[in-house]
Amino acid sequence: MSPLREIAGAVVDLADSHPIGDEVCVGLSGGADSLALTAGAVAAGLAVTALVIDHGLQRDSRAVAERAAGQARGLGARAHVIGVSVSTRGGPEGAARRARHDALAGARDGAPVLLAHTLDDQAETVLLGLGRGSGPRSIAGMVAWASPWGRPLLALRRSVTHAACDELGLEPWHDPHNTDPRFARARLRAEVIPVLEDILGGGVAPALARTARRLREDAEVLDALADDVDAGGGTNGLDRTVLAALPAAIRRRVVRRWMISVGATEPTERLILAVDDLVFDPRPHAAVAIGGDSGHRLSVVADGVELTVTTTPR
Amino acid sequence: MSPLREIAGAVVDLADSHPIGDEVCVGLSGGADSLALTAGAVAAGLAVTALVIDHGLQRDSRAVAERAAGQARGLGARAHVIGVSVSTRGGPEGAARRARHDALAGARDGAPVLLAHTLDDQAETVLLGLGRGSGPRSIAGMVAWASPWGRPLLALRRSVTHAACDELGLEPWHDPHNTDPRFARARLRAEVIPVLEDILGGGVAPALARTARRLREDAEVLDALADDVDAGGGTNGLDRTVLAALPAAIRRRVVRRWMISVGATEPTERLILAVDDLVFDPRPHAAVAIGGDSGHRLSVVADGVELTVTTTPR
Repeated sequence: MSPLREIAGAVVDLADSHPIGDEVCVGLSGGADSLALTAGAVAAGLAVTALVIDHGLQRDSRAVAERAAGQARGLGARAHVIGVSVSTRGGPEGAARRARHDALAGARDGAPVLLAHTLDDQAETVLLGLGRGSGPRSIAGMVAWASPWGRPLLALRRSVTHAACDELGLEPWHDPHNTDPRFARARLRAEVIPVLEDILGGGVAPALARTARRLREDAEVLDALADDVDAGGGTNGLDRTVLAALPAAIRRRVVRRWMISVGATEPTERLILAVDDLVFDPRPHAAVAIGGDSGHRLSVVADGVELTVTTTPR
Repeated sequence: MSPLREIAGAVVDLADSHPIGDEVCVGLSGGADSLALTAGAVAAGLAVTALVIDHGLQRDSRAVAERAAGQARGLGARAHVIGVSVSTRGGPEGAARRARHDALAGARDGAPVLLAHTLDDQAETVLLGLGRGSGPRSIAGMVAWASPWGRPLLALRRSVTHAACDELGLEPWHDPHNTDPRFARARLRAEVIPVLEDILGGGVAPALARTARRLREDAEVLDALADDVDAGGGTNGLDRTVLAALPAAIRRRVVRRWMISVGATEPTERLILAVDDLVFDPRPHAAVAIGGDSGHRLSVVADGVELTVTTTPR
């Protein structure tokens, strides 16, 4: 099978099993992965709009973005360049990712957005999550479909996207970040995964991706069990006696879901564990700060039989 | 706290939460970890018998074993040297581990056996399991207690055991395998974990161990759910319609438990998935070979609505 057909097939597979529809956006950087995905989505018969985010982080970023948009149009897609400004909060990788995410969500105009993450990206995500101790949720990796985001290429190797660009005579952009040793992901790619491959006799990236899939299946069952638990919720708080009777794996998921419902954004594993500790903490009014928006600070307090949330102005 | 007190405290913690009793064996290689554990178990007030396995894999192995036994006696423990022969099936690391395991199980005389795996060993185990794609069960790592095996040091760093040996004036044996680049674990320790530490700003080994603990909590809930499933079993086979209605995470666990019950030893993730595929396989008499003892070969067959096991002489 030609690499382009392989990519188009992966897009069709995603569309067959999820409500993608006939009109899609593709997040396009101009790199081989997203360029090949754009071509594959067009070849799969979808009406494709390529969204090219200009982070303005590199001097020639506008030219890079316009060139990618031109390549997408040459493939039969519509294309828009969207300029964003990136704050440096949370490190350069995290900030660029958040800005890109928000810009794509704002520009998609009701259509799903296909992202070009490959099996190799999945493997790196799992290893990064594991090395940072971000918990089972993080090492379960990225999912193929979480509306409006679709990732049709998670089972394909990066080598396939490069081969598809060769097949089409497309010259992809080489993102300097991908080889910049200041970036954790680039170093993982260059320095860790090849050594692991050598030690274990190959197959490491597929192995990481395979494990991620098993962990997602595990997580689906556990998340559903946590959803069935009635321990109160919202600003009324959670019932500590109900929580204390749950197995740790379910209890922490109930706590996490509640933290998000009261306004904590993407609570870290560390923060979830800190709040979870309050369930068994005999000290009155023990509290954990869990974040909040720019105007308010949220804290979880162990108060009587309940965990409650308090809001204080910053 | 002195390193020796720290190790004794870890032994006490294990004995407080599990039925260890007052008389224990310790698996002793003569290395820093197991020497410190022997000392710590004596300091914790237990009656300790050190079991030193002589694999006969190195020329001076008998002398190394006798020296370790002497050190254990000097610490106030009883000590026995047990000679074993190691087959090379399954690679040198696996074969030595199995031979050691069998010899310790045979010599323990009803007492539990404490093993000196540290947090660093746990981290290496998780990373090896992940790189090999051995599934969630493997990356959940080693457990602190699985009768008769106890691992009191899983939360302590390797540096603590070395410090305890210094404190006691003990010269531990340096296992050449620990730095032999032919061994995957040694290379992981020397070449991968330090690079990961550098990329992620440290804390990788504790992060891996922390994730392993979360995954074990997840697995406990899922294993219990699988135990509650009634899909038949034994040589009568499993009901494919019952299996097909289960979530993948539970179904694979039911399949795994059944494979073990009919005689598959330590079925790999790949083998479990192959048998699991038979649940949905429309071909009549589709079969997967799942192992068996030296005289017989076991196969799982998809037959009508059931998965059944067939036995053929080798």
